[in-house]
Amino acid sequence: MNQSTHSHSQPVFNPPLNQRPLANAIRALAMDAVQKANSGHPGAPMGMADIAEVLWRQILRHNPSNPDWVNRDRFVLSNGHGSMLQYALLHLTGYDVSIEDIKQFRQLHSKTPGHPEYGYTVGVETTTGPLGQGIANAVGFAVAEKTLAAQFNRDGLAVVDHFTYCFLGDGCLMEGISHEVCSLAGTLQLGKLIAFYDDNGISIDGEVEGWFSDDTQKRFESYGWHVIKVDGHDAHAIREATLAAQAESAKPSLIICKTIIGLGSPNKQGKEESHGAPLGAAEILLAREELGWTDDAFVISDEIYEAWDGKAKGAALEQHWDSVFDIYQSRYPELAAELKRRLSGTLPADFEEKANAFIADCNEKAETIASRKASLNTLSALGPILPELLGGSADLAGSNFTIWKGCEGIQDNPAGNYIHYGVREFGMTAMANGIALHGGFIPYVATFLIFMEYARNAVRMSALMKQRVIHVYTHDSIGLGEDGPTHQPIEQIASLRGTPNLHLWRPADTVESAVAWKLALQRQDGPTALIFSRQNLPFQTRSVAQLADVAKGGYVLAAEKGVLKAIIIATGSEIALAMEAHAQLDGVRVVSMPSCEVFIEQSAEYRESVLPSAVRARVAVEAAHVDYWWKFVGLDGRVIGMRSFGESAPAGKLYEHFGITTQAVVDAVNELVG
Amino acid sequence: MNQSTHSHSQPVFNPPLNQRPLANAIRALAMDAVQKANSGHPGAPMGMADIAEVLWRQILRHNPSNPDWVNRDRFVLSNGHGSMLQYALLHLTGYDVSIEDIKQFRQLHSKTPGHPEYGYTVGVETTTGPLGQGIANAVGFAVAEKTLAAQFNRDGLAVVDHFTYCFLGDGCLMEGISHEVCSLAGTLQLGKLIAFYDDNGISIDGEVEGWFSDDTQKRFESYGWHVIKVDGHDAHAIREATLAAQAESAKPSLIICKTIIGLGSPNKQGKEESHGAPLGAAEILLAREELGWTDDAFVISDEIYEAWDGKAKGAALEQHWDSVFDIYQSRYPELAAELKRRLSGTLPADFEEKANAFIADCNEKAETIASRKASLNTLSALGPILPELLGGSADLAGSNFTIWKGCEGIQDNPAGNYIHYGVREFGMTAMANGIALHGGFIPYVATFLIFMEYARNAVRMSALMKQRVIHVYTHDSIGLGEDGPTHQPIEQIASLRGTPNLHLWRPADTVESAVAWKLALQRQDGPTALIFSRQNLPFQTRSVAQLADVAKGGYVLAAEKGVLKAIIIATGSEIALAMEAHAQLDGVRVVSMPSCEVFIEQSAEYRESVLPSAVRARVAVEAAHVDYWWKFVGLDGRVIGMRSFGESAPAGKLYEHFGITTQAVVDAVNELVG
Repeated sequence: MNQSTHSHSQPVFNPPLNQRPLANAIRALAMDAVQKANSGHPGAPMGMADIAEVLWRQILRHNPSNPDWVNRDRFVLSNGHGSMLQYALLHLTGYDVSIEDIKQFRQLHSKTPGHPEYGYTVGVETTTGPLGQGIANAVGFAVAEKTLAAQFNRDGLAVVDHFTYCFLGDGCLMEGISHEVCSLAGTLQLGKLIAFYDDNGISIDGEVEGWFSDDTQKRFESYGWHVIKVDGHDAHAIREATLAAQAESAKPSLIICKTIIGLGSPNKQGKEESHGAPLGAAEILLAREELGWTDDAFVISDEIYEAWDGKAKGAALEQHWDSVFDIYQSRYPELAAELKRRLSGTLPADFEEKANAFIADCNEKAETIASRKASLNTLSALGPILPELLGGSADLAGSNFTIWKGCEGIQDNPAGNYIHYGVREFGMTAMANGIALHGGFIPYVATFLIFMEYARNAVRMSALMKQRVIHVYTHDSIGLGEDGPTHQPIEQIASLRGTPNLHLWRPADTVESAVAWKLALQRQDGPTALIFSRQNLPFQTRSVAQLADVAKGGYVLAAEKGVLKAIIIATGSEIALAMEAHAQLDGVRVVSMPSCEVFIEQSAEYRESVLPSAVRARVAVEAAHVDYWWKFVGLDGRVIGMRSFGESAPAGKLYEHFGITTQAVVDAVNELVG
Repeated sequence: MNQSTHSHSQPVFNPPLNQRPLANAIRALAMDAVQKANSGHPGAPMGMADIAEVLWRQILRHNPSNPDWVNRDRFVLSNGHGSMLQYALLHLTGYDVSIEDIKQFRQLHSKTPGHPEYGYTVGVETTTGPLGQGIANAVGFAVAEKTLAAQFNRDGLAVVDHFTYCFLGDGCLMEGISHEVCSLAGTLQLGKLIAFYDDNGISIDGEVEGWFSDDTQKRFESYGWHVIKVDGHDAHAIREATLAAQAESAKPSLIICKTIIGLGSPNKQGKEESHGAPLGAAEILLAREELGWTDDAFVISDEIYEAWDGKAKGAALEQHWDSVFDIYQSRYPELAAELKRRLSGTLPADFEEKANAFIADCNEKAETIASRKASLNTLSALGPILPELLGGSADLAGSNFTIWKGCEGIQDNPAGNYIHYGVREFGMTAMANGIALHGGFIPYVATFLIFMEYARNAVRMSALMKQRVIHVYTHDSIGLGEDGPTHQPIEQIASLRGTPNLHLWRPADTVESAVAWKLALQRQDGPTALIFSRQNLPFQTRSVAQLADVAKGGYVLAAEKGVLKAIIIATGSEIALAMEAHAQLDGVRVVSMPSCEVFIEQSAEYRESVLPSAVRARVAVEAAHVDYWWKFVGLDGRVIGMRSFGESAPAGKLYEHFGITTQAVVDAVNELVG
C-alpha cells in the first residue's frame, strides 16, 4: 500500500451535474432562516453557494455521521457571519443539524447560533466571526496536519493526510492578521491549505474600491502562494481550480472567486443591502421566483436531500482510512498507540510522576533565577516526555526562553516541534488555536506580556473555545527596566484575569513556575496564560503542605507570628517584598496568589482558611494595575502597584520611583492595623 | 508665487561628499551609549546610519531650533528599538539633545529613554517600539498632511506641504498592521509618504528566511506603491532613490535598502548578536578601528558637528515658509486664522455654547433612542462647527453611526472629513494617533466594542502619548443580541478603564451621550473611549443640578426616599434597571457613573457626597465583567453583571438568562439591607 491508494488528486463522488438547484437549496435556507430570526447575513451564503456546493458535495472528504473522524478534511468559514452557509451545508450533507435546528437560527441554546461556535454544532471546526482569525485557524490546522503527518506517516501509510479548506471574504483580507498567517503559510509551504476568496467587491460600507484596492493575486504570489482566478458561480471552473490547487503540493492555494453577493435576490444582489440584514418577505418571494425555487420555507425536496447526502460516501471514506490505519497499527503498534494518545489529548501515563519529581527537584535546588528561566527549565524537564508540545515565539525565542534544547524548527525539519512565528503575535495565537483544535498537539506560544495586546482577541478565542493553548508571556512588569513604558505591562494582567475561562499564573519562583506549567499542561478545558519575569526572583522555602497548596492558586506562604492582624497578598516578583515586610511585622500573614482564578475555584472553606473574612486589614502588592485587587482587599484595604504608565530606567530605580517597595508594604500594613 | 517656489523635487543643501565619517558618527554614538547604559540596540542604528545621513543631512526639511515648525517634514522611526539612531540624529543636527543627554540613555527621566517617547524628546514625532505602529502613525501623518493641504492650500500657496518619512524593519513588515495601513496608503495615493525598509535579513530569532520570505517589492506593488531597491550603504544610490520617490506624487514609495545590521562591528555585523545588546568594550575597540573612528567615546569632532548642523538651513526653510504664509494670510485672512486655530488644537470660540445648547435640547426632547443614535445626533449637531473632525470607522459606518450628513470620504474628496478605513481596526487606530500627532484634526474612529481588542495596543498608545483621539465603540454588551459571544464584550470595558490616562464614558441616555462627546472633544491631554449601545435606552429626567453634574463622571441620578440605606451604581443600559429597582425600594439612591475615571478625578468631598463611605450596602450593575466594580462596592457589596461569555439570542432573553434584571437588583439590595 502506498500513498496513492488514497490520493486526493481525483475526486471520488458526485459528478458536476444539475448543480444550480443544489446550490439554491443553500440560498433558500439562508434567506428563510435569516428572515425567521429577523437577524443575520444572507449575502455571503447566497454568494458562495455555488462554491460551497462544489467543495462540500464533490470534494470534501468528511463523514457526516462521525464529525470527529480524525482524518477528515477541515473546513473553516473565516467569514463567519455567513454562518447559515455552514449550517445549511451541515444539514444538507447529513450532520446532526435538523431543519428544526435551522429554524432556531440565532436563538438561545440552539445548535445554530449567530456565528459558528465550536462546541455548539457538530461539524463546526472552529468559532469564527472575528474577521481574519478563521484563515489563521486554518493555517494552524494545516501546520498541525503537515507536522503530525511528518511525525507519524510511514512507508506510504499516510494515516494523517487531509486538506484544510477555508472560505474568506474581503474583510478577512483587509485584516492585518491575514497578512501575518498567509505570509507564514507561504514560507512553510503548506501545500494542503486551500482558501476560497469570496471576491464580491462589497463590504459593509459599500463597494470596496474606495478602501480596498489591493491586487490580491499579486499579494498572495508575493507570499509564495499558488493563485487561481475563477468565476465563483461556474461550478465546473471552481471544481477544476480546486483540483489544480490539490495538485500543487508545495504551495498553499488561493482561489479567487468572483461572485455576486446575495445572488438570487433580484433587488439586493450585488449590493451591501444583502449583506447583513433579512431580505424581507417580499424580496424573498421575488428571489424564489428568480431562483426557480418552488418549495416552501424550510422545505427541501427528497431529491435534493438525496443529492446532497454525504453519509454513505463519508462512511466509505472513513472505512477506507480504518483499513489503512489497521495496516499501520499492525506494522507500527507503538506509533499507532502514540498517535491515538496524542489525538485523544491524554498526557503520557508518567506525566504526573515526572512533573512532581521535577517540582520536588526545584524545591530542593532552591534556585534564585528569573521565572522565565524557571519556565525554560520546566520545558527542558518535561519536553522530552511530551512530543505533543508544539512551541513557538513571535521572534523572541531567546528572550521568552521557550526554545529548549530538544526543539527543532518545522521550517528545517517537518517533523519538528517548534515554530519560529516571526513578529506575528496575533497570527501566532490564532494559529495556535487552530493547532489545538486540530488535535495531536499542545501548542505553546510566547511573546512579551505587553504584546499580548496585539493578539488579544485570539487569546480570548482560545478561552471561548476551551482550548488547551498555553500562552507564555515574559517581561511581565516594570521589572523589565530600560525598554520603558511601551514595553512595560500595567493593565494587561487584570485584562487577562477578566477573560472568562482563562487561567492566569504569575509564579513567584521556580517551584510555582513548575506547578503552573504542570497545571497548564493538564488542563483539558481551557487555555492558561503563564506570566514570567525578566529579572531574578528569590526562591521561597515551603513546607510539604505549602508545596501541595501551590496548585490551589493561592495559599499561605508565610504564617503570621502571633495573632492574625493583617494579610499581605502578593504574586510573582512582589512576593519578595511581601516576605521582607513579613520579617518586620508581627501578626501578618503572606498569601501567595499565583492564580486568582484557580484560587476562586477552591472550596469556600479553603478560601476562608487562607483569607479569613473577618480580617479586613489587607494589603495587595503587585507591580501591575492596582484595580484588580480591590476584589480581595475591599474598601478598607490597600493596594500597592501601578496607577500610571512606566518609565525607561533600570528596574531597581523604577520600583523605588513607583513606590513598590518593602517599606511601602510595611507602612500600608501599619496604617491599617495601627 | 506658485508651488514650485518651494518644491521638494530638488535637494537644498549638503552635497553627498565624505559621507561615511558622518554616518560613522551615528555608529559611534550608538555603540557608546548602548554600552554605557549596558542595555539597548546598536544593530539598527549602525545598519541604517548611511540612510539616515542622506535623509537627515541632505533631504529632510526641518528646523532643529524649532521642532514645532508646522510645515516640517515628519520623520518616524518605526523600528523604535533603534532609538539611538534618532537621538544621534537629533543631537548631531542641532536639536536640544546634548551629549550629556546621550550619556543618560535609558536612565530615569532622561531625554533619551529606551524607545523614542513622544513628549520626552524634542523632535520625536511619535512614540515607537511596538512594531508596525510607527509606519501606521506615518500613514496617519501623511493622510493628515494631504487632507489639511486640500482643505487649506490655495492658488499655489502650499502652506501645508511636507513629506512624511518612515524607517522600518523586518519586524514592522511581518506585523499585520503594516498590511492594513500600507494597503490603505496605496488606495489613498499618499504620494508624499516615503518609507525606507532596513532589509538586513536578521530578526531576533536569527536569519529571517525561515519565517519571513515575502517578496516585499511585489507585496507593496500589489498595494499600489512605488518601490525602489538600493544598496543601503551607497549614499548616492539612497539619495537618487529618495529624489525619485519624491517625484512620484501619486503613489507612496518604499525604498528597500539592503543593509548589514551592526555595520562596523567586525565580529557581530550581519548577525543577530548586534541587534539588541551592547557590543562589549573589546568589540567596540575593534569597531572603532574598522570604521577608522579615532575619537573617544561620546566625542565628536567640530568638523563633523559642523557638517551635520542643520540649524541654519532649518531657519532658512522656516523663514521661507513664513514668507509664504504671510502672503497667504494677507490674501486669505480668515483661512489663515482658521488654520492657526486648527493647528493650535483650540476649539471654536462658540463650541461650549453650542454644545451646551445641544445638551439642553437633548434634555428637552427626552428621546428614548440607542446611545449610538444619540452619538450620531451629537455629531450631527456639533460636526458643522468642527471642521477639524476627521472621522472614520472600520467598515461599520452604518452600524457605529459615525457618518453624519456633512461627511465626505477623503477617497472621493481630498478635502473631505471622513475615512472609510475598511476592516482595519488596528491600522485605523494607529493612523488616528498619527493624525492627532500631526495637528489640525481631531480624529474619531469607530468599531464594535469587542473589536477594540484588535486595536488594543494602539488605544493604549493614544493614552501614553496623551493624544486627543476619540475612540467610538458601539454594540457595547450582550445587549447586541444575536451575534453572540464572539461579538459580545465582557471584559473590554474593565480593560479600557485600566489604561492610564484614558477616559471612558458609557452614557445612559441622550444627555449623557452628548456630555460625553463634549468632554471628549474638549479634552486636550488624552484620549476618550465612548461606549454606546446598539439598543434603545430610556431617557432619564434630571434637575438642572443633575444635568450639570453629569460632567463629573458620577452623580446621584435618583435620590433616596427617606434615610439612605443602600446605593445602586450603574452605567449605560443598566441605568434603566437601577431606576426600576429604585421605584420599588425605600432608602436607596441610584448613582449614574458614566465615567469612573472622571468621577475619581473629582474632589474627595464631592465623591463622598455621592458615595458616602459609611454606606456599605452597595450594588453595582453593569452588563460587563463584574470584577471592575469591587473597587466601588467592596467586600460587602454585590455586583450584578457578567461572569462568563455571552450567548447568541435576542437581547431581552440574554438579560434574563444572565440574571441582569430589575428583580436581581432589588433582591441584591434587600439581601444587603434586610
